[in-house]
Amino acid sequence: MKISALTPLAASLPSTVPFVGPETTERRLGHPFTARLGANESLFGPSPKAIAAMQKAASEVWMYGDPEIFDLKAALAAHHGCRAENIVVGEGIDGLLGYLVRLMISPGDPVVTSLGAYPTFNFHVAGYGGTLHRAPYRGDHEDPQALLDLARQTGARLLYLSNPDNPMGSHHPAAVMAEMVANLPEGTLMLLDEAYIDLAPAGTAPQIDPDTPNLIRFRTFSKAHGLAGLRVGYAITHPELALAFDKLRNHFGVGRIAQAGALAALQDQAYLAGVRTQVEQARQRVSQIARTHQLTPLGSATNFVTIDLGRDGAFARATLAALTEAGIFVRMPGVAPLDRCIRVSLGPEPALAAFERALPAALAAAAASLGSHLGG
Amino acid sequence: MKISALTPLAASLPSTVPFVGPETTERRLGHPFTARLGANESLFGPSPKAIAAMQKAASEVWMYGDPEIFDLKAALAAHHGCRAENIVVGEGIDGLLGYLVRLMISPGDPVVTSLGAYPTFNFHVAGYGGTLHRAPYRGDHEDPQALLDLARQTGARLLYLSNPDNPMGSHHPAAVMAEMVANLPEGTLMLLDEAYIDLAPAGTAPQIDPDTPNLIRFRTFSKAHGLAGLRVGYAITHPELALAFDKLRNHFGVGRIAQAGALAALQDQAYLAGVRTQVEQARQRVSQIARTHQLTPLGSATNFVTIDLGRDGAFARATLAALTEAGIFVRMPGVAPLDRCIRVSLGPEPALAAFERALPAALAAAAASLGSHLGG
Repeated sequence: MKISALTPLAASLPSTVPFVGPETTERRLGHPFTARLGANESLFGPSPKAIAAMQKAASEVWMYGDPEIFDLKAALAAHHGCRAENIVVGEGIDGLLGYLVRLMISPGDPVVTSLGAYPTFNFHVAGYGGTLHRAPYRGDHEDPQALLDLARQTGARLLYLSNPDNPMGSHHPAAVMAEMVANLPEGTLMLLDEAYIDLAPAGTAPQIDPDTPNLIRFRTFSKAHGLAGLRVGYAITHPELALAFDKLRNHFGVGRIAQAGALAALQDQAYLAGVRTQVEQARQRVSQIARTHQLTPLGSATNFVTIDLGRDGAFARATLAALTEAGIFVRMPGVAPLDRCIRVSLGPEPALAAFERALPAALAAAAASLGSHLGG
Repeated sequence: MKISALTPLAASLPSTVPFVGPETTERRLGHPFTARLGANESLFGPSPKAIAAMQKAASEVWMYGDPEIFDLKAALAAHHGCRAENIVVGEGIDGLLGYLVRLMISPGDPVVTSLGAYPTFNFHVAGYGGTLHRAPYRGDHEDPQALLDLARQTGARLLYLSNPDNPMGSHHPAAVMAEMVANLPEGTLMLLDEAYIDLAPAGTAPQIDPDTPNLIRFRTFSKAHGLAGLRVGYAITHPELALAFDKLRNHFGVGRIAQAGALAALQDQAYLAGVRTQVEQARQRVSQIARTHQLTPLGSATNFVTIDLGRDGAFARATLAALTEAGIFVRMPGVAPLDRCIRVSLGPEPALAAFERALPAALAAAAASLGSHLGG
């Protein structure tokens, strides 16, 4: 006797994971990583006030969280100068992307993203049977015009773009984003993933009416706020679309500790400003490490620096593998030509120094292992 | 300009909530409830060791949780005498029910449940376009034979049953559940929701091979373990079905504090035993309060006592409304004839005493407001 049949769509999906967690690798290695620089977590940690709020909430966690997430939504609305009706809070941007795709995508519906952009969005689109169309990056940037053109050609229902960009760390100025929204094809909803916006140069976030009907912006407490393991993200959009999430979201899915921690983090903007300063210093430090080894650090508007190793994907993969064996967790873009790079999250000096120590041997090991393929 | 069109299925769904949270009512009342006895949360709270583990994890929450949830799954497998491959951990039973329905239900697929059983399951079935068929309760119990018959008649892909039952608090002995599983129609997967099993009489959980292909059992840390606001549930099923969840689950959805708290709670079985004792005492107390007012407490295998008020749904709703205004949060079954009852969660004496104090006036107010309709 076999298990009951899955739906045809579910049966067609692989049992895959968008990202292998560092713990999986640690179990294989038999020891923890020395430096955890692969998942764009904030090694600077969350606000002490957020930690205190979470610890207090831990003793109240026998209660479900407020399913309306009222207090956090009100605070977010005040912070962004919009109404609570413009805000949707969910289980990280990952969770919210899943709900949004479910609301909008029937099997076969076209969706546009960049070739090499966030895999978890692709995971959700595939999971609901959507058809992905991918525009290549232009250099190290997502290509607004190519994305718009592709959306128009394919009749895309969704267009995904992250600004600042993951995995390259690049960004477009606010005006480019505003221009994109103004030029969306009829019937295309733009998903503007601003997970890293708190770390971008001032003014990178475009000023766009939150009631704009063809735009949904995603924010998170996972990056600058240092709360990746808490799972709180939010979206800002037209109230009608925001309300539609109530049709299918896990209404009690954002728990009590999560709501308390996110609210306290939001209220500690002074701490956030300090993180921005530390991130900027760490950017300089990692960029200097890269240049020391004749590598090219890309400009970063995020909490990571993407380093162009100057060779191909095989070389970057070999370097990453050697770093991994040396106890340094980093990741890298998945597709060419972005995969000539590795991506190093930012953190305090000890982690960056560990990366610095391990890098030369990793580069040498990669060169040695691939030397015969490189003709030179 | 309007927002982009939702899928036809999403457009057809109401922006509804399976349950209104007590915080929503508190905002309307303008003050907190005196006694929070409506959501079957554990007023006895979680293990102090779980609180300590969550507080420790709060300072590490800049890290994502392990997406494989390895340690918790291993501990659960050891606890249940199965393999980790039999276990799926997710964002509460609510989250897991959503994933399971998504894996199994295409629009129009038939699903069987009991008339008046868990609304959030129905929410998910409707959310994926399934067609719900409902068998009435037999007295205060879900009716295994009626459910099996209905599954056979409708060709149901899923059959949901909770044992012990919510909202009635009743239970079937293990042998009845085992017999049900043995007699499932070909092609029907049974969802056995055992959210309250830790509070049921010893032996209520049937001993069934976890590799049984047409059964999935759901457990939670929200009830006896007192971690409702943490959002951790799990399922035990055939490894092939368990693996299928990886096709679509939010892989990082169970965060770092959640995993730590659940693991520590699982490891403190002595605390759990103490909760069972306290729950049994509180059952006696609430039952005595009911009998004092010539009401009928139903037998309880859960952390709540359902009280038959002996009249109709209008009377119970009026009583509940009066209790609410008096600062006592309770809930009640949604459909007749179960809605002659109210459902009182169990907790320490102060909350039960507050219920006791408020009950007579609430009954009197209900009787007064409905007197003219009752012909008596």
